[in-house]
Amino acid sequence: MAQPPIICTVDVVLLCLKDAALHVALLRRDHAPFAGALALPDGYVDPEQDRDAQDAAVRILREKAAIVSPYLEQLGTFSGKGRDPRGWSISVAYYALVPAHIMDLARHPALQLLTVDHLKGQPFDHREIIQAAVERVRSKSTYSSLPVYLCGERFTLPQLQGVYEALLGEPVNKVSFRRKMDELDILEPIPGAMETGRANRPAQLYRLKKKYRNQLSLTGRGLNPDPLK
Amino acid sequence: MAQPPIICTVDVVLLCLKDAALHVALLRRDHAPFAGALALPDGYVDPEQDRDAQDAAVRILREKAAIVSPYLEQLGTFSGKGRDPRGWSISVAYYALVPAHIMDLARHPALQLLTVDHLKGQPFDHREIIQAAVERVRSKSTYSSLPVYLCGERFTLPQLQGVYEALLGEPVNKVSFRRKMDELDILEPIPGAMETGRANRPAQLYRLKKKYRNQLSLTGRGLNPDPLK
Repeated sequence: MAQPPIICTVDVVLLCLKDAALHVALLRRDHAPFAGALALPDGYVDPEQDRDAQDAAVRILREKAAIVSPYLEQLGTFSGKGRDPRGWSISVAYYALVPAHIMDLARHPALQLLTVDHLKGQPFDHREIIQAAVERVRSKSTYSSLPVYLCGERFTLPQLQGVYEALLGEPVNKVSFRRKMDELDILEPIPGAMETGRANRPAQLYRLKKKYRNQLSLTGRGLNPDPLK
Repeated sequence: MAQPPIICTVDVVLLCLKDAALHVALLRRDHAPFAGALALPDGYVDPEQDRDAQDAAVRILREKAAIVSPYLEQLGTFSGKGRDPRGWSISVAYYALVPAHIMDLARHPALQLLTVDHLKGQPFDHREIIQAAVERVRSKSTYSSLPVYLCGERFTLPQLQGVYEALLGEPVNKVSFRRKMDELDILEPIPGAMETGRANRPAQLYRLKKKYRNQLSLTGRGLNPDPLK
């Protein structure tokens, strides 16, 4: 049986935390459909160079936003006749989390950060995809270490607590937050490293334990310093 | 840009609980590739008749297993060059839960129920897809009403507790189970309906509250009594 052609794409929801609010990175589209609109970084799956859809997502994020994310997970697949004017399409959507300073380092000229709570006018079903990603991240934040990927490589516990609070949209009890971090058992204090630049007394800096750090260290190593090369 | 052709299919992991063990429904394949092997009900996405991939999953489950499931959810998408000998493919996988007696009613001649814990020899990456579905269902069972979809329309609380225990693979404390059911607030006793056929004293029969029942009632209405036509 010959299957009528179906457009296969990948969309990436790239999230970071800026000014205590979750932001999504959108790109100004330079071609039809929806040329000029701010949309998710996306692209065709290329059977000749992509091993699978996740591989395509990594490539598209690198090519279009000059970023390699330490956390990239499949969000879900969006499909149907109406979502793309070019025809019946399947888009496998991924979400990625990066510390805000990585987004600054990438300095991609067409990349814009928008707060996720006031989106409008995105083409395709990109707003729906972004909302699904935000819901997933907020829901996972209640029980997992996921928010750590929005921090840099060194952070104080109050800073990390602030990240959880920003994601959950409500204050977190300090004692139960520390107990939860103890239970997750993923952090270690950096010997001798204190943050002293604030008005408060110096605070111990923490990092991910080594076995969890490989993934996070990709942030620096994978970053392409010149997106225009 | 013309995209090289990609095979787009849908796979459905149809689960039920039988003899206190989770079972998956597999079909004997009647065509290549892997003709004769026991595999998940699957099929091509058909852009001419399917509104989206979920629509394709509903159609394939109806056509190939003669079942309409009250619970059908997207599991994830499996893709790449190596998973299908016909070429680079994307398969959107769904999982469905049905009470065991619905599986019996469908009586599809090519359908076989296998326990999910002793699978081997499935073609494609179907074993991996089944394992992902089982993991999802077991994980969701710890905090949601999902297991109710594995019961029939009437059940006693000890029967429902047994379903949770079978999914979680461990005994559940009766008091905390009942507290959890109260919190979920999805069940109601059926007035005057008791189960009396057992050695124990008669037990109250329960059902889903009306607002949750629409979905479940599809089980009966959607069932195709003749799987061969």
